[in-house]
Amino acid sequence: MYPKSLESLINSFMRLPGVGRKTAERYAYSLLNSLNDEKIDSFISSLSGIKSIKRCEKCGFLTDNYICDICENPIRDKSIVLVVEEPKDVIAIERCNEFSGLYHVLNGVISPLNGIGPEELNIDTLLNRVEKDSVSEVIVATSATVEGETTALYLARLLKDKTKVSRIAYGMPVGSSLEYNDETTIMKALEGRNTIN
Amino acid sequence: MYPKSLESLINSFMRLPGVGRKTAERYAYSLLNSLNDEKIDSFISSLSGIKSIKRCEKCGFLTDNYICDICENPIRDKSIVLVVEEPKDVIAIERCNEFSGLYHVLNGVISPLNGIGPEELNIDTLLNRVEKDSVSEVIVATSATVEGETTALYLARLLKDKTKVSRIAYGMPVGSSLEYNDETTIMKALEGRNTIN
Repeated sequence: MYPKSLESLINSFMRLPGVGRKTAERYAYSLLNSLNDEKIDSFISSLSGIKSIKRCEKCGFLTDNYICDICENPIRDKSIVLVVEEPKDVIAIERCNEFSGLYHVLNGVISPLNGIGPEELNIDTLLNRVEKDSVSEVIVATSATVEGETTALYLARLLKDKTKVSRIAYGMPVGSSLEYNDETTIMKALEGRNTIN
Repeated sequence: MYPKSLESLINSFMRLPGVGRKTAERYAYSLLNSLNDEKIDSFISSLSGIKSIKRCEKCGFLTDNYICDICENPIRDKSIVLVVEEPKDVIAIERCNEFSGLYHVLNGVISPLNGIGPEELNIDTLLNRVEKDSVSEVIVATSATVEGETTALYLARLLKDKTKVSRIAYGMPVGSSLEYNDETTIMKALEGRNTIN
Protein backbone atom coordinates (compact mmCIF):
# COMPACT_ATOMS: atom_id res chain seq x y z
CA MET A 1 0.00 0.00 0.00
CA TYR A 2 2.93 2.31 0.62
CA PRO A 3 4.83 3.58 -2.42
CA LYS A 4 7.34 0.94 -3.52
CA SER A 5 10.34 3.09 -2.59
CA LEU A 6 9.09 3.58 0.98
CA GLU A 7 8.21 -0.10 1.31
CA SER A 8 11.72 -0.98 0.19
CA LEU A 9 13.27 1.30 2.84
CA ILE A 10 11.02 -0.23 5.53
CA ASN A 11 12.25 -3.68 4.44
CA SER A 12 15.88 -2.52 4.65
CA PHE A 13 15.34 -1.35 8.22
CA MET A 14 13.56 -4.62 9.11
CA ARG A 15 16.73 -6.52 8.20
CA LEU A 16 18.53 -4.85 11.15
CA PRO A 17 18.67 -6.93 14.36
CA GLY A 18 15.63 -6.56 16.61
CA VAL A 19 13.73 -4.22 14.29
CA GLY A 20 10.10 -5.15 13.53
CA ARG A 21 7.59 -3.64 11.12
CA LYS A 22 6.38 -0.81 13.42
CA THR A 23 9.90 0.31 14.36
CA ALA A 24 11.03 0.16 10.72
CA GLU A 25 8.05 2.32 9.69
CA ARG A 26 8.94 4.81 12.43
CA TYR A 27 12.55 5.03 11.23
CA ALA A 28 11.45 5.45 7.60
CA TYR A 29 8.96 8.20 8.52
CA SER A 30 11.58 10.07 10.52
CA LEU A 31 13.77 10.27 7.41
CA LEU A 32 10.79 11.13 5.20
CA ASN A 33 9.75 13.99 7.47
CA SER A 34 13.18 15.59 7.61
CA LEU A 35 12.91 18.99 5.99
CA ASN A 36 15.58 18.50 3.34
CA ASP A 37 17.48 15.62 1.75
CA GLU A 38 20.64 16.36 3.74
CA LYS A 39 19.88 13.79 6.46
CA ILE A 40 19.24 11.11 3.83
CA ASP A 41 22.37 12.03 1.86
CA SER A 42 24.59 11.85 4.93
CA PHE A 43 23.04 8.46 5.74
CA ILE A 44 23.80 7.25 2.22
CA SER A 45 27.39 8.46 2.30
CA SER A 46 27.99 6.88 5.72
CA LEU A 47 26.66 3.57 4.38
CA SER A 48 28.92 3.81 1.32
CA GLY A 49 31.79 4.60 3.66
CA ILE A 50 31.68 1.34 5.57
CA LYS A 51 32.06 -0.64 2.34
CA SER A 52 35.72 0.45 2.40
CA ILE A 53 36.31 -0.77 5.96
CA LYS A 54 39.03 -3.41 6.10
CA ARG A 55 40.67 -5.52 8.78
CA CYS A 56 44.02 -4.18 9.98
CA GLU A 57 46.70 -6.42 8.39
CA LYS A 58 48.60 -6.48 11.65
CA CYS A 59 45.99 -6.93 14.39
CA GLY A 60 42.63 -7.60 12.68
CA PHE A 61 40.89 -4.51 14.11
CA LEU A 62 38.68 -2.37 11.86
CA THR A 63 40.34 0.33 9.78
CA ASP A 64 39.85 2.55 6.74
CA ASN A 65 43.50 1.96 5.73
CA TYR A 66 45.76 -1.10 5.75
CA ILE A 67 47.05 -0.63 9.29
CA CYS A 68 44.77 0.62 12.07
CA ASP A 69 45.28 3.79 14.14
CA ILE A 70 46.23 1.83 17.26
CA CYS A 71 48.99 -0.20 15.53
CA GLU A 72 50.34 2.98 13.90
CA ASN A 73 50.42 4.97 17.16
CA PRO A 74 54.14 5.39 18.04
CA ILE A 75 53.40 6.02 21.75
CA ARG A 76 51.87 2.60 22.37
CA ASP A 77 53.89 -0.21 24.00
CA LYS A 78 54.58 -2.72 21.21
CA SER A 79 55.86 -5.41 23.61
CA ILE A 80 52.40 -6.19 25.07
CA VAL A 81 49.63 -7.66 22.91
CA LEU A 82 46.09 -8.01 24.24
CA VAL A 83 44.03 -10.70 22.47
CA VAL A 84 40.25 -10.16 22.12
CA GLU A 85 37.42 -11.87 20.28
CA GLU A 86 35.76 -8.99 18.41
CA PRO A 87 36.54 -5.40 17.36
CA LYS A 88 33.97 -4.07 19.86
CA ASP A 89 36.02 -5.63 22.66
CA VAL A 90 38.91 -3.34 21.66
CA ILE A 91 36.58 -0.37 22.16
CA ALA A 92 35.52 -1.71 25.58
CA ILE A 93 39.17 -1.90 26.73
CA GLU A 94 40.09 1.47 25.19
CA ARG A 95 37.28 3.10 27.16
CA CYS A 96 39.19 2.34 30.42
CA ASN A 97 42.20 4.46 29.34
CA GLU A 98 44.29 1.91 31.24
CA PHE A 99 45.95 -0.24 28.60
CA SER A 100 48.68 1.21 26.39
CA GLY A 101 49.83 -1.88 24.48
CA LEU A 102 48.60 -3.25 21.16
CA TYR A 103 45.65 -5.52 20.34
CA HIS A 104 45.01 -8.67 18.40
CA VAL A 105 41.44 -9.45 17.25
CA LEU A 106 40.71 -13.17 16.78
CA ASN A 107 37.34 -12.64 15.07
CA GLY A 108 35.65 -15.26 17.20
CA VAL A 109 36.44 -18.08 19.63
CA ILE A 110 37.20 -21.78 19.27
CA SER A 111 33.76 -23.40 19.30
CA PRO A 112 33.60 -27.03 18.12
CA LEU A 113 29.78 -27.04 18.42
CA ASN A 114 29.57 -24.27 15.82
CA GLY A 115 32.32 -25.84 13.72
CA ILE A 116 34.85 -23.10 14.49
CA GLY A 117 38.39 -24.44 15.00
CA PRO A 118 41.67 -22.53 15.51
CA GLU A 119 42.27 -22.40 11.73
CA GLU A 120 39.09 -20.30 11.27
CA LEU A 121 40.46 -17.62 13.62
CA ASN A 122 43.08 -14.89 13.18
CA ILE A 123 45.74 -16.93 15.04
CA ASP A 124 48.46 -17.37 12.34
CA THR A 125 49.14 -13.63 12.28
CA LEU A 126 49.35 -13.59 16.10
CA LEU A 127 52.03 -16.31 15.95
CA ASN A 128 53.91 -14.27 13.32
CA ARG A 129 53.75 -11.13 15.46
CA VAL A 130 55.07 -12.91 18.55
CA GLU A 131 57.94 -14.42 16.52
CA LYS A 132 58.92 -11.31 14.52
CA ASP A 133 58.24 -8.41 16.89
CA SER A 134 59.76 -8.69 20.35
CA VAL A 135 56.50 -9.36 22.21
CA SER A 136 57.21 -9.90 25.90
CA GLU A 137 53.64 -10.66 26.99
CA VAL A 138 50.39 -11.79 25.40
CA ILE A 139 47.31 -11.02 27.53
CA VAL A 140 44.33 -13.17 26.59
CA ALA A 141 41.07 -11.25 27.15
CA THR A 142 38.54 -13.60 25.59
CA SER A 143 35.08 -13.90 27.21
CA ALA A 144 34.61 -15.70 30.53
CA THR A 145 32.73 -18.50 28.80
CA VAL A 146 33.65 -22.12 28.08
CA GLU A 147 34.63 -21.18 24.51
CA GLY A 148 36.63 -18.17 25.71
CA GLU A 149 38.49 -20.31 28.25
CA THR A 150 39.18 -23.02 25.67
CA THR A 151 40.61 -20.41 23.31
CA ALA A 152 42.76 -18.94 26.10
CA LEU A 153 44.19 -22.38 26.98
CA TYR A 154 44.84 -23.15 23.30
CA LEU A 155 46.76 -19.88 22.87
CA ALA A 156 48.71 -20.46 26.09
CA ARG A 157 49.91 -23.87 24.87
CA LEU A 158 50.71 -22.53 21.42
CA LEU A 159 52.77 -19.59 22.67
CA LYS A 160 54.25 -20.84 25.98
CA ASP A 161 57.76 -21.44 24.55
CA LYS A 162 57.82 -18.09 22.76
CA THR A 163 56.54 -15.53 25.28
CA LYS A 164 54.71 -15.03 28.56
CA VAL A 165 50.97 -15.64 28.19
CA SER A 166 48.56 -14.24 30.78
CA ARG A 167 44.80 -14.25 31.19
CA ILE A 168 42.77 -11.30 32.53
CA ALA A 169 41.40 -12.02 36.01
CA TYR A 170 37.96 -13.34 36.84
CA GLY A 171 37.01 -9.89 37.98
CA MET A 172 34.25 -9.94 35.44
CA PRO A 173 31.11 -11.96 36.25
CA VAL A 174 31.40 -15.51 34.86
CA GLY A 175 29.18 -16.19 31.84
CA SER A 176 29.06 -12.57 30.77
CA SER A 177 30.49 -11.11 27.58
CA LEU A 178 33.39 -8.62 27.74
CA GLU A 179 31.42 -5.97 25.88
CA TYR A 180 28.81 -5.57 28.63
CA ASN A 181 31.14 -5.15 31.62
CA ASP A 182 31.65 -1.74 33.17
CA GLU A 183 34.98 0.08 33.06
CA THR A 184 35.96 -0.65 36.69
CA THR A 185 35.34 -4.38 36.33
CA ILE A 186 37.46 -4.51 33.18
CA MET A 187 40.21 -2.50 34.92
CA LYS A 188 40.21 -4.83 37.94
CA ALA A 189 40.35 -7.81 35.61
CA LEU A 190 43.35 -6.30 33.80
CA GLU A 191 45.22 -5.62 37.06
CA GLY A 192 44.61 -9.13 38.48
CA ARG A 193 45.79 -11.07 35.42
CA ASN A 194 47.56 -14.42 36.03
CA THR A 195 50.19 -16.35 34.05
CA ILE A 196 48.78 -19.51 32.46
CA ASN A 197 50.83 -22.62 33.35
CA MET B 1 38.44 4.91 18.32
CA TYR B 2 36.38 3.30 15.57
CA PRO B 3 37.40 4.03 11.96
CA LYS B 4 35.85 7.34 10.89
CA SER B 5 33.54 5.72 8.35
CA LEU B 6 32.06 3.37 10.96
CA GLU B 7 31.72 6.19 13.48
CA SER B 8 29.84 8.21 10.87
CA LEU B 9 27.40 5.34 10.23
CA ILE B 10 26.82 4.93 13.99
CA ASN B 11 26.01 8.65 14.16
CA SER B 12 23.56 8.31 11.26
CA PHE B 13 21.73 5.52 13.08
CA MET B 14 21.70 7.54 16.32
CA ARG B 15 19.72 10.26 14.54
CA LEU B 16 16.78 7.82 14.18
CA PRO B 17 14.05 8.14 16.84
CA GLY B 18 14.72 6.14 20.02
CA VAL B 19 18.12 4.83 18.92
CA GLY B 20 20.99 5.23 21.40
CA ARG B 21 24.71 4.53 21.06
CA LYS B 22 24.56 0.78 21.85
CA THR B 23 21.69 0.12 19.44
CA ALA B 24 23.35 2.17 16.72
CA GLU B 25 26.57 0.17 17.14
CA ARG B 26 24.59 -3.05 16.92
CA TYR B 27 22.92 -1.93 13.69
CA ALA B 28 26.26 -0.83 12.18
CA TYR B 29 27.91 -4.15 13.09
CA SER B 30 25.09 -6.15 11.56
CA LEU B 31 25.73 -4.40 8.23
CA LEU B 32 29.49 -4.74 8.62
CA ASN B 33 29.24 -8.47 9.27
CA SER B 34 27.07 -9.20 6.23
CA LEU B 35 29.09 -11.41 3.92
CA ASN B 36 28.95 -9.17 0.86
CA ASP B 37 28.09 -5.57 0.04
CA GLU B 38 24.67 -6.49 -1.38
CA LYS B 39 22.81 -5.72 1.87
CA ILE B 40 24.51 -2.31 2.11
CA ASP B 41 23.86 -1.55 -1.57
CA SER B 42 20.16 -2.37 -1.27
CA PHE B 43 20.01 -0.16 1.83
CA ILE B 44 21.62 2.70 -0.09
CA SER B 45 19.29 2.35 -3.07
CA SER B 46 16.24 2.22 -0.82
CA LEU B 47 17.39 5.43 0.88
CA SER B 48 17.94 7.12 -2.49
CA GLY B 49 14.48 5.90 -3.50
CA ILE B 50 12.58 7.79 -0.83
CA LYS B 51 14.07 11.09 -1.99
CA SER B 52 11.70 10.86 -4.97
CA ILE B 53 8.60 10.33 -2.82
CA LYS B 54 5.99 13.02 -3.41
CA ARG B 55 2.55 13.84 -2.04
CA CYS B 56 -0.35 12.75 -4.29
CA GLU B 57 -1.66 15.92 -5.96
CA LYS B 58 -5.21 14.78 -5.40
CA CYS B 59 -5.32 13.38 -1.86
CA GLY B 60 -1.96 14.14 -0.22
CA PHE B 61 -0.99 10.48 0.34
CA LEU B 62 2.58 9.34 -0.40
CA THR B 63 3.41 8.31 -3.96
CA ASP B 64 6.29 7.76 -6.38
CA ASN B 65 4.26 9.46 -9.16
CA TYR B 66 1.97 12.47 -9.28
CA ILE B 67 -1.22 10.60 -8.39
CA CYS B 68 -1.20 7.77 -5.82
CA ASP B 69 -2.25 4.17 -6.47
CA ILE B 70 -5.45 4.54 -4.43
CA CYS B 71 -6.69 7.61 -6.36
CA GLU B 72 -5.85 5.92 -9.68
CA ASN B 73 -7.63 2.66 -8.82
CA PRO B 74 -10.77 2.57 -11.06
CA ILE B 75 -12.58 0.10 -8.75
CA ARG B 76 -12.70 2.45 -5.76
CA ASP B 77 -15.83 4.47 -4.93
CA LYS B 78 -15.03 8.08 -5.81
CA SER B 79 -18.13 9.45 -4.09
CA ILE B 80 -16.85 8.80 -0.55
CA VAL B 81 -13.78 10.58 0.80
CA LEU B 82 -12.24 9.61 4.14
CA VAL B 83 -10.20 12.38 5.79
CA VAL B 84 -7.17 11.39 7.92
CA GLU B 85 -4.31 13.23 9.60
CA GLU B 86 -1.25 11.34 8.37
CA PRO B 87 -0.27 8.90 5.59
CA LYS B 88 0.14 6.11 8.14
CA ASP B 89 -3.54 6.48 9.04
CA VAL B 90 -4.38 5.52 5.44
CA ILE B 91 -2.42 2.30 5.94
CA ALA B 92 -4.26 1.64 9.22
CA ILE B 93 -7.65 1.91 7.47
CA GLU B 94 -6.52 -0.06 4.41
CA ARG B 95 -5.50 -2.95 6.70
CA CYS B 96 -9.20 -3.48 7.58
CA ASN B 97 -10.12 -4.26 3.94
CA GLU B 98 -13.46 -2.61 4.75
CA PHE B 99 -13.34 0.82 3.12
CA SER B 100 -13.46 1.14 -0.66
CA GLY B 101 -13.68 4.92 -1.10
CA LEU B 102 -10.89 7.46 -1.52
CA TYR B 103 -8.77 9.25 1.08
CA HIS B 104 -7.71 12.77 1.88
CA VAL B 105 -4.60 13.34 4.02
CA LEU B 106 -4.59 16.62 5.97
CA ASN B 107 -0.94 16.37 7.06
CA GLY B 108 -1.77 17.29 10.63
CA VAL B 109 -4.61 18.69 12.76
CA ILE B 110 -5.71 22.18 13.72
CA SER B 111 -3.70 22.94 16.84
CA PRO B 112 -3.58 26.59 17.96
CA LEU B 113 -1.10 25.75 20.74
CA ASN B 114 1.42 24.58 18.14
CA GLY B 115 0.55 27.43 15.79
CA ILE B 116 -1.15 25.17 13.24
CA GLY B 117 -4.28 26.71 11.74
CA PRO B 118 -6.52 25.43 8.89
CA GLU B 119 -4.38 27.24 6.30
CA GLU B 120 -1.36 25.08 7.23
CA LEU B 121 -3.30 21.91 6.40
CA ASN B 122 -4.23 20.25 3.11
CA ILE B 123 -7.83 21.59 3.27
CA ASP B 124 -8.05 23.75 0.10
CA THR B 125 -7.64 20.71 -2.13
CA LEU B 126 -10.34 18.88 -0.13
CA LEU B 127 -12.75 21.77 -0.79
CA ASN B 128 -11.85 21.62 -4.50
CA ARG B 129 -12.46 17.88 -4.65
CA VAL B 130 -15.87 18.17 -2.98
CA GLU B 131 -16.89 20.94 -5.37
CA LYS B 132 -15.54 19.43 -8.61
CA ASP B 133 -16.01 15.68 -8.14
CA SER B 134 -19.46 14.53 -7.08
CA VAL B 135 -18.55 13.62 -3.49
CA SER B 136 -21.65 12.44 -1.64
CA GLU B 137 -20.03 11.91 1.77
CA VAL B 138 -16.91 13.07 3.60
CA ILE B 139 -15.99 10.83 6.55
CA VAL B 140 -13.72 12.58 9.05
CA ALA B 141 -11.37 10.07 10.71
CA THR B 142 -9.06 12.37 12.65
CA SER B 143 -7.79 11.22 16.07
CA ALA B 144 -10.10 11.10 19.11
CA THR B 145 -8.22 14.00 20.70
CA VAL B 146 -9.20 17.61 21.32
CA GLU B 147 -7.29 18.68 18.19
CA GLY B 148 -8.82 15.89 16.12
CA GLU B 149 -12.34 16.86 17.28
CA THR B 150 -11.70 20.54 16.58
CA THR B 151 -10.55 19.68 13.07
CA ALA B 152 -13.61 17.48 12.49
CA LEU B 153 -15.97 20.26 13.60
CA TYR B 154 -14.14 22.79 11.42
CA LEU B 155 -14.48 20.56 8.36
CA ALA B 156 -18.13 19.86 9.12
CA ARG B 157 -18.94 23.59 9.20
CA LEU B 158 -16.87 24.23 6.07
CA LEU B 159 -18.53 21.49 4.01
CA LYS B 160 -22.06 21.23 5.44
CA ASP B 161 -23.75 23.07 2.52
CA LYS B 162 -21.84 21.08 -0.08
CA THR B 163 -22.03 17.45 1.04
CA LYS B 164 -22.81 15.11 3.92
CA VAL B 165 -20.06 15.13 6.55
CA SER B 166 -19.77 12.25 9.01
CA ARG B 167 -17.40 11.37 11.85
CA ILE B 168 -16.18 7.85 12.63
CA ALA B 169 -17.71 6.55 15.87
CA TYR B 170 -16.16 6.69 19.31
CA GLY B 171 -15.50 3.00 19.00
CA MET B 172 -11.84 3.72 19.50
CA PRO B 173 -10.62 4.50 23.00
CA VAL B 174 -10.65 8.26 23.64
CA GLY B 175 -7.22 9.88 23.78
CA SER B 176 -5.57 7.28 21.58
CA SER B 177 -4.13 7.82 18.13
CA LEU B 178 -5.73 6.14 15.09
CA GLU B 179 -2.51 4.41 14.16
CA TYR B 180 -2.41 2.26 17.30
CA ASN B 181 -5.96 0.91 17.22
CA ASP B 182 -6.58 -2.68 16.16
CA GLU B 183 -8.46 -3.56 12.98
CA THR B 184 -11.73 -4.49 14.70
CA THR B 185 -11.92 -1.24 16.66
CA ILE B 186 -11.34 0.77 13.50
CA MET B 187 -13.96 -1.29 11.66
CA LYS B 188 -16.55 -0.74 14.45
CA ALA B 189 -15.75 2.95 14.41
CA LEU B 190 -16.32 3.06 10.64
CA GLU B 191 -19.69 1.26 10.90
CA GLY B 192 -21.01 3.46 13.73
CA ARG B 193 -20.25 6.80 12.09
CA ASN B 194 -22.66 9.70 12.80
CA THR B 195 -23.62 12.78 10.79
CA ILE B 196 -22.27 15.99 12.32
CA ASN B 197 -24.99 18.62 12.86
